Amino acid sequence: MNCVAHQSSGLWRHPRDRSRHYNDLSYWTGLAKILEGGSFDGIFIADVLGTYDVYGGTDEAALRTGSQVPVNDPILLVSAMAAVTEHLGFGITAGTAYEHPYPFARRMSTLDHLTKGRVGWNVVTGYLPSAARNMGQTDQLGHDDRYDVADEYLEVLYKLWEGSWEDDAVVEDRETGVFTDPAKVHPIEHHGTHFDVPGIHLSEPSVQRTPVVYQAGASPRGIRFAAENAEAVFVGAPTLPQLAATVAKIRDALEAAGRDRYAARVYTLLTVITDETDEAAQAKYRDYLSYASEAGALVLNSGWMGVDLSQYDLDEPLGNIESNAIQSAAANLSAATGEDGTTWTVRDIARQTAIGGLGPVEVGSGATIAQRLIDIQEQTDVDGFNLAYAVTPGTWEDVIEFVVPELRARNAYPDGYREGSLRHKLLGRGDRLPEEHRGASFRVGVSATA
Amino acid sequence: MNCVAHQSSGLWRHPRDRSRHYNDLSYWTGLAKILEGGSFDGIFIADVLGTYDVYGGTDEAALRTGSQVPVNDPILLVSAMAAVTEHLGFGITAGTAYEHPYPFARRMSTLDHLTKGRVGWNVVTGYLPSAARNMGQTDQLGHDDRYDVADEYLEVLYKLWEGSWEDDAVVEDRETGVFTDPAKVHPIEHHGTHFDVPGIHLSEPSVQRTPVVYQAGASPRGIRFAAENAEAVFVGAPTLPQLAATVAKIRDALEAAGRDRYAARVYTLLTVITDETDEAAQAKYRDYLSYASEAGALVLNSGWMGVDLSQYDLDEPLGNIESNAIQSAAANLSAATGEDGTTWTVRDIARQTAIGGLGPVEVGSGATIAQRLIDIQEQTDVDGFNLAYAVTPGTWEDVIEFVVPELRARNAYPDGYREGSLRHKLLGRGDRLPEEHRGASFRVGVSATA
Repeated sequence: MNCVAHQSSGLWRHPRDRSRHYNDLSYWTGLAKILEGGSFDGIFIADVLGTYDVYGGTDEAALRTGSQVPVNDPILLVSAMAAVTEHLGFGITAGTAYEHPYPFARRMSTLDHLTKGRVGWNVVTGYLPSAARNMGQTDQLGHDDRYDVADEYLEVLYKLWEGSWEDDAVVEDRETGVFTDPAKVHPIEHHGTHFDVPGIHLSEPSVQRTPVVYQAGASPRGIRFAAENAEAVFVGAPTLPQLAATVAKIRDALEAAGRDRYAARVYTLLTVITDETDEAAQAKYRDYLSYASEAGALVLNSGWMGVDLSQYDLDEPLGNIESNAIQSAAANLSAATGEDGTTWTVRDIARQTAIGGLGPVEVGSGATIAQRLIDIQEQTDVDGFNLAYAVTPGTWEDVIEFVVPELRARNAYPDGYREGSLRHKLLGRGDRLPEEHRGASFRVGVSATA
Repeated sequence: MNCVAHQSSGLWRHPRDRSRHYNDLSYWTGLAKILEGGSFDGIFIADVLGTYDVYGGTDEAALRTGSQVPVNDPILLVSAMAAVTEHLGFGITAGTAYEHPYPFARRMSTLDHLTKGRVGWNVVTGYLPSAARNMGQTDQLGHDDRYDVADEYLEVLYKLWEGSWEDDAVVEDRETGVFTDPAKVHPIEHHGTHFDVPGIHLSEPSVQRTPVVYQAGASPRGIRFAAENAEAVFVGAPTLPQLAATVAKIRDALEAAGRDRYAARVYTLLTVITDETDEAAQAKYRDYLSYASEAGALVLNSGWMGVDLSQYDLDEPLGNIESNAIQSAAANLSAATGEDGTTWTVRDIARQTAIGGLGPVEVGSGATIAQRLIDIQEQTDVDGFNLAYAVTPGTWEDVIEFVVPELRARNAYPDGYREGSLRHKLLGRGDRLPEEHRGASFRVGVSATA
């Protein structure tokens, strides 16, 4: 995120952490070069358009602990990072509730042009009520209603991206003076429940047209939405069996939506702490933990759960609290630690999530981690990892220095990049949406004959 | 604009024009470096979120002639250009009708951070009906109503930019773990006619807080809006007496709004064609004219006037057409050429505006142009020039090669940049809005005691 600390509360205080430089372009261009140097597929920049104000019912604790506030717009970082890289992908979070699809379609097309086809969009329907309130709504829509709006939002976008300009519409004929053949540019004539967009898309076709569609969302409605739209899905799970079940559920949903089980990449959230040896990595982890902020973790967890954790004593056993979200957190603690009989407390939630948020933390030498990542992939059918940081860019520098060579030695990591767009790099089937994707049905000519 | 040709219709066909590369970041980073090399104050990127579909009642002619369509988002260009420059300012057009002020406030704060205080915002209230239709409105609001919405839009922005975070709110105390002092961050509690924004601004204070406010708009309501908000005003006039009158009107309006007559810079639209000698410049101009597109100029003029010029024969005398906008165009033709008795036709409108749009074109050697610019400034009290291009970046390269040295020889052009933000560079009174500016009244503490 374009903020300090992101998911590792309090780590902005660590001498090695540079997240405080999030307002400097050189931080972002440097980070992009580091990641491309390590052949990372891309950088994913999450976002919230609100504050974590569930804890205590105000945003005071979020401000005090620097918990994802202040937070700046991620989309404006892309062009600077694109200018200093050639292959790195850019996944940007943007909400369907906060901008009309007409200007948003142009924003993403612009980025796809400027990056030469390296942009992805992480679709979120919004989960912070504070964001909705500042957009003039008394509260955000219900969970499933948000997805219904998002469905139509994507329909408008697909029509603009896929169905307005034919591939050869721009002729650029210097003799006749014809720049675009107007017969090959079509008004989308969208007249729906939530949106009314009669006109043409303002951007000419870009490399990917539709940016790579990312999604996270573990609810049944969220998984259905992902199965219909996503080409990459972010997941997270405390144990490998749970991760395997999640991955299988997504692949089943893809098939149910008429797509290949492997039509979307599934990436699981993980934080890696690594060094020369297992011992050095463990020492590094202990050092990081000494900077972790329980207060900040409680702020974030309150927002994620929708439960105000400030109302409980830190030593309150979770078993005493009547809340599905809390019981689910307790179960996750047991699952993650393998300690089934433990009496978990509110403090344990904070401790468990203070580094890396809701994702697991793996600690070890490059060889240990490399083998672990391979094992995770083999045991769960997950495609890859959404790596969070304890300190930035140090956590990723460490992965590149210690883990990547070990993965390469095991033939489990590419030596460089495949040519082509982000979509082709990730999925290997060309720059454009495949025929069976929902968005492809809106292509010019296709929808007319369907 | 982030499109081909912009105001010089048809010139995208000229071998020297690189506007076709508007989708390449290297075009924009190269342009930024050229302009900074010439000590230009800034680059101003205009925008429309719609098509010029008045001509013939469709956007076909606009597409065919490449008249500001396709057109991409300008705001996404800034970070790449900022990364390769140190002083150049960035003026970006964005409309008050097309994005909610809450996310927009964050976008501009993000850019102000990333550019270290080099960003300006050209406020437009929207003038293309096609844009409004694609935003789900049956038509755009009436002219003065748009300004009323814009008034409140700016109030929300000023509250977020100036009145939410105190200067020393971010304490970044690594010992206590306090990132921000919540007592120094204030919810703006805006509950207005058009917007309801209760919360805090999401961005910490940037160098300028409020970006430099640019505005264009020659109507009485537009001038009042500019007098209350603008720090830089874009104007245009066919003759020097008319320009002088416009500048005086703006300065009077500034005083009427309680500000200094010189509190806002006034920049007039101009296209300069220059070369080693007057003769070479005239030859260059004739060459450019041979690429100009009358058809494209008619498309743009139809949009600017709100009159469908396709309904008239090209040789139709303007005197025969009952339309205030047409009669005004005829008067401008007489004024600009000094030919009072001429029978102007529809074709003359196209010819007169095909290079540089509604702004004058000055043709001559560097010495000739330099003296002319100085004369314009002395005779009209205008502060400077909003230079359009015939070909890009060639038109500006020529100005830098031929005109800038002549201006410097006459002590009429700086040798380099003043330190500080764009605001300080332009106005010389610091990085922040001055006390007497409307936006300053919303500052924390000030508004509370007012």
